[in-house]
Amino acid sequence: MAGRKAVEVYLDLLSQPCRAVQIFLRCTEIPHKVNLVALRKGENQSSDFTKLNPMQKVPVMVDNGFVLTESDAILKYLATKYNAPDHWYPRQPEKRAKVDEYTAWHHTNTRAHAAKVFILEVLLPRMTGQPTEQTRVQNALVDLNGTLDKLEDMFLKRQPFLCGDDISLADLLAICEIMQPLGGGRDILQDRPKLLRWKSRVQSALKDSFDEAHTVLYRLRDKSKAKL
Amino acid sequence: MAGRKAVEVYLDLLSQPCRAVQIFLRCTEIPHKVNLVALRKGENQSSDFTKLNPMQKVPVMVDNGFVLTESDAILKYLATKYNAPDHWYPRQPEKRAKVDEYTAWHHTNTRAHAAKVFILEVLLPRMTGQPTEQTRVQNALVDLNGTLDKLEDMFLKRQPFLCGDDISLADLLAICEIMQPLGGGRDILQDRPKLLRWKSRVQSALKDSFDEAHTVLYRLRDKSKAKL
Repeated sequence: MAGRKAVEVYLDLLSQPCRAVQIFLRCTEIPHKVNLVALRKGENQSSDFTKLNPMQKVPVMVDNGFVLTESDAILKYLATKYNAPDHWYPRQPEKRAKVDEYTAWHHTNTRAHAAKVFILEVLLPRMTGQPTEQTRVQNALVDLNGTLDKLEDMFLKRQPFLCGDDISLADLLAICEIMQPLGGGRDILQDRPKLLRWKSRVQSALKDSFDEAHTVLYRLRDKSKAKL
Repeated sequence: MAGRKAVEVYLDLLSQPCRAVQIFLRCTEIPHKVNLVALRKGENQSSDFTKLNPMQKVPVMVDNGFVLTESDAILKYLATKYNAPDHWYPRQPEKRAKVDEYTAWHHTNTRAHAAKVFILEVLLPRMTGQPTEQTRVQNALVDLNGTLDKLEDMFLKRQPFLCGDDISLADLLAICEIMQPLGGGRDILQDRPKLLRWKSRVQSALKDSFDEAHTVLYRLRDKSKAKL
């Protein structure tokens, strides 16, 4: 790919799918440039950014002039275009289909439910200056626990990673969501040994890129703890 | 593929993603067998079906012993494995990425919002014996209209189909969701000439398979109209 420009990505590392994109780029050593877009400062609503992505959302990827949104699509594109090790997004149709099955399910399950807990415990109180009613948090936790049960009992039933014997884009997208409630000081895996073992397998596979991408979230967790 | 058994699918044709799978199988003439699973009779909760899919959801596909759920994953698998015409799910990475971008977006937009209108106007009143409060329906319509605006102003801005010059899995998944509120007698495209033109392009491309898969929904629409 001589003469190609490095891939550019637009990210806010407090956004779960953005962290997944950053970790993937580091792990696969695809030459890239990160442009930070601070959502809390409304930088995603600037006219330049809106030209790039009229939806005003991160992550956005630009590869040699080709603009792409949606972390799921970005990761699959990068894996294909830059020939990432096959385990990330296997070429064999049945194996690939299992990754597509998880990533389709992810949007309205792992992502929706873990994000909601973070929104209720961190973002909403910040916006309103008031803590969120406990019943709303409890309801969100019930939904999230239903999802965590399914991850354990179905996806991880007979295998070490969500879609098979090795780490894939599915695990990467999932772990970044599951980490998010930590920003409010809540460790949703603490009583879940099976998911904890999965998490350490994922973390070993991702090496330094994992903690690196989560630095901003760790800082937020430490602040939440200091407040308690 | 001599010696292969026909693909088996488990569908309820009142479910939008199931219709997409059925239409795709007809259009591409992949040999298949449809097993109907009536959700309203709870057939998805039978022990046999639960063994097949512990999530108790349709659609499910079984191809030579390989079991797959999630319409998005099923359609992509079938297109790849059975070498469907390229326009459905293009092999060229940038074109494929645009289909993946739409299908990722679809889950929490077109699907979530069109389904909600149907649930509030048809399923909920059936379960409770009461019409749903009008404010709830109005709020759901506001969300749905936001999605329809994005389909027109972003995806269809400069092209006849959602992801380019020809029909793809994106259009197929989208049209099946957009049809759903019709089951309650509501045509959400009636004041949207741009989406109506898109709909007729999609319908021409899908030929008879479109009306065939929507027969059950048309019947429900006629019943809703008779009640008014």
